Amino acid sequence: MKLQAKILCTVLCTLFIQNAAIADDKGGKFRNPDNPNLADSGEGTYPVPYKKPVAKEVTEALHRIRTYLESTTPTRVINKSTGAIITDFKKPIKEAIFEPSKGDYGIMVYEMGVVHSGLLKVRAATNDKRFTDMTERHLSFFAQTKPYFKAQEDQFHLERGNSFSRFLDPRSLDDAGSMCAALIRVRLAKIGPDLNDMIQTCSNWVSKQQFRLSDGTLARKRPQAVSLWADDMYMGIPALAEIGRLTGDKTYFDDAVRNVLQMSAYMFNPQNNLYTHGWNANNPDAPRFYWARANGWAVLAMSDLLDVLPKDHPGYPKVLNQLRLSLKGIAEQQSGQGLWHQMIDRHDSYLETSASAMFVYAIAHAVNQGWISPTTWGSIAQAGWAGLSTRITEKGEIEGICVGTTFASDQTYYYHRPTSVEALHGYGPTLMAGAEILQMLKNPAFNVEHKVRTYHYVPTGSDKTDYREHH
Amino acid sequence: MKLQAKILCTVLCTLFIQNAAIADDKGGKFRNPDNPNLADSGEGTYPVPYKKPVAKEVTEALHRIRTYLESTTPTRVINKSTGAIITDFKKPIKEAIFEPSKGDYGIMVYEMGVVHSGLLKVRAATNDKRFTDMTERHLSFFAQTKPYFKAQEDQFHLERGNSFSRFLDPRSLDDAGSMCAALIRVRLAKIGPDLNDMIQTCSNWVSKQQFRLSDGTLARKRPQAVSLWADDMYMGIPALAEIGRLTGDKTYFDDAVRNVLQMSAYMFNPQNNLYTHGWNANNPDAPRFYWARANGWAVLAMSDLLDVLPKDHPGYPKVLNQLRLSLKGIAEQQSGQGLWHQMIDRHDSYLETSASAMFVYAIAHAVNQGWISPTTWGSIAQAGWAGLSTRITEKGEIEGICVGTTFASDQTYYYHRPTSVEALHGYGPTLMAGAEILQMLKNPAFNVEHKVRTYHYVPTGSDKTDYREHH
Amino acid sequence: MKLQAKILCTVLCTLFIQNAAIADDKGGKFRNPDNPNLADSGEGTYPVPYKKPVAKEVTEALHRIRTYLESTTPTRVINKSTGAIITDFKKPIKEAIFEPSKGDYGIMVYEMGVVHSGLLKVRAATNDKRFTDMTERHLSFFAQTKPYFKAQEDQFHLERGNSFSRFLDPRSLDDAGSMCAALIRVRLAKIGPDLNDMIQTCSNWVSKQQFRLSDGTLARKRPQAVSLWADDMYMGIPALAEIGRLTGDKTYFDDAVRNVLQMSAYMFNPQNNLYTHGWNANNPDAPRFYWARANGWAVLAMSDLLDVLPKDHPGYPKVLNQLRLSLKGIAEQQSGQGLWHQMIDRHDSYLETSASAMFVYAIAHAVNQGWISPTTWGSIAQAGWAGLSTRITEKGEIEGICVGTTFASDQTYYYHRPTSVEALHGYGPTLMAGAEILQMLKNPAFNVEHKVRTYHYVPTGSDKTDYREHH
Repeated sequence: MKLQAKILCTVLCTLFIQNAAIADDKGGKFRNPDNPNLADSGEGTYPVPYKKPVAKEVTEALHRIRTYLESTTPTRVINKSTGAIITDFKKPIKEAIFEPSKGDYGIMVYEMGVVHSGLLKVRAATNDKRFTDMTERHLSFFAQTKPYFKAQEDQFHLERGNSFSRFLDPRSLDDAGSMCAALIRVRLAKIGPDLNDMIQTCSNWVSKQQFRLSDGTLARKRPQAVSLWADDMYMGIPALAEIGRLTGDKTYFDDAVRNVLQMSAYMFNPQNNLYTHGWNANNPDAPRFYWARANGWAVLAMSDLLDVLPKDHPGYPKVLNQLRLSLKGIAEQQSGQGLWHQMIDRHDSYLETSASAMFVYAIAHAVNQGWISPTTWGSIAQAGWAGLSTRITEKGEIEGICVGTTFASDQTYYYHRPTSVEALHGYGPTLMAGAEILQMLKNPAFNVEHKVRTYHYVPTGSDKTDYREHH
Repeated sequence: MKLQAKILCTVLCTLFIQNAAIADDKGGKFRNPDNPNLADSGEGTYPVPYKKPVAKEVTEALHRIRTYLESTTPTRVINKSTGAIITDFKKPIKEAIFEPSKGDYGIMVYEMGVVHSGLLKVRAATNDKRFTDMTERHLSFFAQTKPYFKAQEDQFHLERGNSFSRFLDPRSLDDAGSMCAALIRVRLAKIGPDLNDMIQTCSNWVSKQQFRLSDGTLARKRPQAVSLWADDMYMGIPALAEIGRLTGDKTYFDDAVRNVLQMSAYMFNPQNNLYTHGWNANNPDAPRFYWARANGWAVLAMSDLLDVLPKDHPGYPKVLNQLRLSLKGIAEQQSGQGLWHQMIDRHDSYLETSASAMFVYAIAHAVNQGWISPTTWGSIAQAGWAGLSTRITEKGEIEGICVGTTFASDQTYYYHRPTSVEALHGYGPTLMAGAEILQMLKNPAFNVEHKVRTYHYVPTGSDKTDYREHH
Repeated sequence: MKLQAKILCTVLCTLFIQNAAIADDKGGKFRNPDNPNLADSGEGTYPVPYKKPVAKEVTEALHRIRTYLESTTPTRVINKSTGAIITDFKKPIKEAIFEPSKGDYGIMVYEMGVVHSGLLKVRAATNDKRFTDMTERHLSFFAQTKPYFKAQEDQFHLERGNSFSRFLDPRSLDDAGSMCAALIRVRLAKIGPDLNDMIQTCSNWVSKQQFRLSDGTLARKRPQAVSLWADDMYMGIPALAEIGRLTGDKTYFDDAVRNVLQMSAYMFNPQNNLYTHGWNANNPDAPRFYWARANGWAVLAMSDLLDVLPKDHPGYPKVLNQLRLSLKGIAEQQSGQGLWHQMIDRHDSYLETSASAMFVYAIAHAVNQGWISPTTWGSIAQAGWAGLSTRITEKGEIEGICVGTTFASDQTYYYHRPTSVEALHGYGPTLMAGAEILQMLKNPAFNVEHKVRTYHYVPTGSDKTDYREHH
C-alpha cells in the first residue's frame, strides 16, 4: 500500500496542480455557442456562459425566481404559539403574526419592496401578468389585515412584535422607503388594492420624520450617533422621487436631488469613482470600505430618481453626471467572471450576487434609457448577466447573496459575511437585471454584432463598421 | 481500505495545504546561484531563476527559438488541393498558396515582422549571422514569388485568398506596418534581396491610405465605425519612423510623433500611467481595459521611434517623456514572478508572455540607450527576463502567449483569451528581449552589484557605494 | 486498486475543490464568541479570532513572548573556539564574544532596541515588572562587559568581529538609532544601570556622524551611493527625539521633524498615502516598491516623535498630519485577515507579521493618544490584533516575520523574502501592539459596542447611538 499511496499521491498532486492552474487561470466549462466553428483555436472557454443572452432563457430564469418566491412567501395570519391559521379578523389575539416566509423573505421588509419593483419591471418587459400575481397577493393581504393588526397593537402594544409594525409605527428608512416606492409604483401601474393610507404613512416617515443632518441629508443614529449610509440613498431617494411623481409636488424632487448630491459629497471618492459604505461625524475622514452592495444601492437610487425626475429639473444633469461617474467606477472593477467582488475594489474577496445584479440592472437600464452609450456598456451588462445567470438555480433560488450587513469598520467583518440563498437582497435586483436585459435584446437603438469572438454594441444609425481588413 | 483511505486523505490534504501555502506565498524551486552560501537563511527560493542573466544561457535560448521558427516556417508554394509543391512559377494556378507554417506563424503576418526585427537585433547582439538566415530565406522567397502571385491575382481575383494579398492589396495597418518597418530595417542592414516595391506598397498604405481621424490619428473602422487601437501605435509608428529614416523626409517623423502624442491623449490614463486597449468615437469616455499587450505595442512603438528620430526633432523630448511615463506605469505592475498579467492592472488574471517580453525589451533597451537610469530599471528588466526564460521550452517554443485578441468591451473576454505556443505574438518580442539583455550584460555604463542577496545596477562613474556599515 | 484509486481521487478532488472554495472565499475556523446566539445565520465564521480582545489572553500572549525571548538571549561571554564561558573580565582574549542568541536575536541589534521599547510599554500597560527583567539583564551585561570588549578592541582590533563593535565603533543608523532610543527610554524610566557613555556614543552617531544629504536628510551610501531608506525614519528619528527629551535641547526636535518632512517629501506617495521603500539620487523618479515593513518603520518613527515632541513645537501639527495620512493609506490596505501583505499594495503577496504588528501598534497608540478618532480606527486595530494573535505560538515564537530585507529594485526579490520565527523584527512590534491593545481595553475615552455582529468604538460623551429602529 505504501508505494501505491505514494504513486497515487503523485498522480493526485499532479492532477491538482493542473486543475488549480486551469482554475486560477483562464478557461472554464463554457464555450461560446455563438461561434459555430468548433475548431477555432482562437475561441477560449469560459467559467460563465459567455454569449449573447437568449430572451427565452432569461425569461425562464425569471419565472423560476417568481415561482420560487411565490411558494416561499405565504400570506396568512397564524397563531405563533399553535401554528393554527387565523381567518377570523374581527377580534385580535396577541399571538397573531404573519405566517413566516422561508428564510429572510419577510413580506414587509425593504428587500421585498425591491422584489415588487423588480416584478413590475419584468411584467413590463415580458408583458406577462403572472409576474405581478405575487405583488397583488401580498398587497391585498396588507389591505385585508391592516385593521386587524392595528387593533392588535391598540390592545396589546406589541411594538416590533406586531407583524405590521413597519407601517403602524415606522422607525427607519429601512421600514419605509423601499416599500413606499414600490407601493406607489404599483398604484400608478393600477395593480392591486388601494393602499393610500400605507403610502401616506411611509411617505411621511421618509420625507418628514427620518433623522437628518442639519443640511438635510438622510442620516441614522447608528452605528455612531450621527451616521450616513450609502444604502440610504436607496432607502430614501426613490421613495422621495415617487412621492414627487404621485403628488406632483416639486419639493420632493428637490429633496431627492439634494440627497444624491450631499450623500455623494460625503461618501463618493472621486479618485476611484466608488462609494464608501458609510460616513460618521465622529470620524469624518475615516478609512473607507468599498462594500459592493452599498455602491449598488447608490446607483439604483440615482437610476430610479432619473426615471421620474422631470428632465428640466435643474438637478437632472447633476444626478445624471453622478450616475455616470459611479457606473464608470463600478464597471472598471468588474471581474473576469462578469460578477463583482464583495469589496468591490478587493479582488481577493468573494464574488457577490446582489451587488452584481444591481450593477447589471443599473448599467443595462442606463443603456436602454440612453443615459450612457450602448457601446462598451452593453457588453459589460451582457457579461454581467452571464455571471449572474450562473447564480440562479433550477429551483429559482439565487446563490451567493451576502446576508444583511451593517456599516462596519473593518475588512475582516466585510470579507467574511456569509452568503445565503435565504438572503432576499439579491432577488429583486436579479429580477430587475433580467427585465432590463430583455429590454436590451429588444432595443432598436443598437445592434449587437458578434465579431472576432466577442460582442460589440453598435448604435443604430452610426457609421458602418468595416471588417474588410480582417480575413 | 476505509481507514487507509482516510489516512491517505489526511496525508494528501496536509500535503496540499502546505503546497498551496507555498505556491500562494513565497518560495519556489529556484535558489539564487549567485549566493554561494547554501546555509544562508536570509536567502529565499524563487519560482523563477532569480540571478544575473548568463550570456551563454540567453544565447542558447535564442538559438532554440531561432531553430524552432526555422523549422516551422516553410517557404514553398504548394497546390492547396493536392499538397504538391509548385516550383514552376511561369503560369499561375488558382490553387497555389504559400505552404502553411505551423500554428499561426504565417510568413507575411505582422507578428513575423516583429520576428525579423528581433532576429536583426539578436544578430547585432551576438554577432552571429545565423540569426538572420530565416529572414533572408523569407525575403528571398517574397522576391521570388511576388510576380507569380501578382499574375495569379490578375487572373483569378482571389483577394484575401491570395497568399500575397497583404502586399498586393493591403487593407490595414496589420497588413502593412510591422512588416514595412522590418523590411526597411533589413534593407538598411544590407541583408537579403531588393524589396523596394514591397516597401513602396506598405509605406504608401501606412502613410497615406490607412483610415485616420480628422486630426490625423491612425484609426480603424472596427469594432466601432471610428475606433483607435493602442496596438496601432506599433502597427503605424515604427513604419513611419523607418520611412523617415529611409527617405530622409522629416514629415514622416512629424507624423510618427504626432501619432504618439495623439494616441496617448486618447488612450493613456495619467492616473495609473497605463494605456487602455482602445477608444471609440461612439463612447469616448468608456470604461477602460488595460490589456497588457496593448501597452507592450505602445512602448515598442515609442522605443522604435526614438531609435531613429533625430535628437533635435522637437518631438524627441515629448516622446521620450511619454515613454518614461508608460514604462513607470508598467514597471509598477510587474508581478512577483517577473512577468506581467494579461490585464496588466488585474493581478488575478494570468501571467502573459508576449506583453512581458515587450516590457523586458523596452525597459532593457531604454536602459541601454540611456533613456532611463540603469538603477532600478536594470533590476526590473533582469527580473523580467528571469520570468520570461521559464516560458521558453527546450524545443524553442514559447509558452503562455495570448492568442490574437480584438479590442473588446468586457473583462470576461480578456481574462479568458486562450494562450498557445502557436501564437506568434510573443516570439519576436522574446528575441528582442533576449538581445537587449545580452546588450545589458556588455554595457559599460553600469556595474551589476550582487549585494545582500539582490542586484543593484550602479552607474559607472557614480560615487562609490559603501557597505562598510554592513557586517 | 485502480477503481478504488479512481473513487478516492474523485472524493479527494471534490473535497479539495470545496475546501479551496471555502479558503479562497469567506469563512474559517473561528466563530465570534461575543455573539451568544449559535443559531444566528447572520453570523459568519472567520479565519482569525474575530472578537473583542480579552486582556487576560493578550497578557498571556505577551508573557509567552517575554519568556521565549528571555530563554533565547543569553548574556554571557564565551570563547568562540571552545565554547567555554568566560567570567574573568580582567584580561581580554581574542576569542571572547557574546554568547550567540538563538536565531537573529542578537542582544545589541537594532531589532532588540525595539524589543526593549516594547517591553517597557508592556510593563507600563500591565504594571508587571517582570516585563523589563530581560531589559535589565541585557543592559547590566552591557555595563559589565563594555570595558572588557573595549580592551579587547584596543589589543586585537577585531572591528566588526568585536561583539561590542556597534558601540565601540558605530558605522550606521542600524548600529545606533534604535538601541539609542531604547537606552534613553529605559534610563528615563529609571531601570537598569547607568549607560551614559553608551548613550553618548550612539547619540553622537545619529545626530552628528551619520551620512546625510546636503539638506540634512539622513542617508546611506548603499545600495546606491546616495540613498534614502524609509526604514531610516525609525533608525534615526526616535533617537533624535529621545535625545531632545533627555537633553532638553530643541535642535534635536528640529532635526527629527525635518527628517520626517524631508523623508516624506522624497518617499511618500500622496496618491496612495504609502511610502516607497527607498529613494536614490541615481534614479530619483524610479518605480516604487511599497514594502510593508518600511511603512511600519515610518509610522513608528512619527509616533515615537509625537510622544515626546512638545505640542507647541511648530513641527507638531505637520508630523501629526503626516502620521494621519500614512495611517489612512495603511488602513485602507488591511487584508480580510486583519494582517497586511508583504508588499502592502499587492494583495497576492504573503501576509507579513512584523509590519502588521507595527501598524496595529501605531493605530492603537494613535487612538489612545487621541491623535485619531477611536471610531473606525479602534475596529481596525482590533481586527489587526485578531490576525496578529494567530501568529504567536504556544512557545512564544512569532511566525510569518520577513527576514532582514535590503532596499531592492524588483518585486521578485520582495515577494519571495523568506519568513522565519528567528527574525527578530516582529517581536518588539508585537510587544508594542499588545501593550497598546491592553491600553485600548482600559481607555475611558470610548466604549466598544458589540452590535449587529461587529464592533463600534463610540467616543465617551458623544451623542447616544440608537438601535430602536433595529429589531
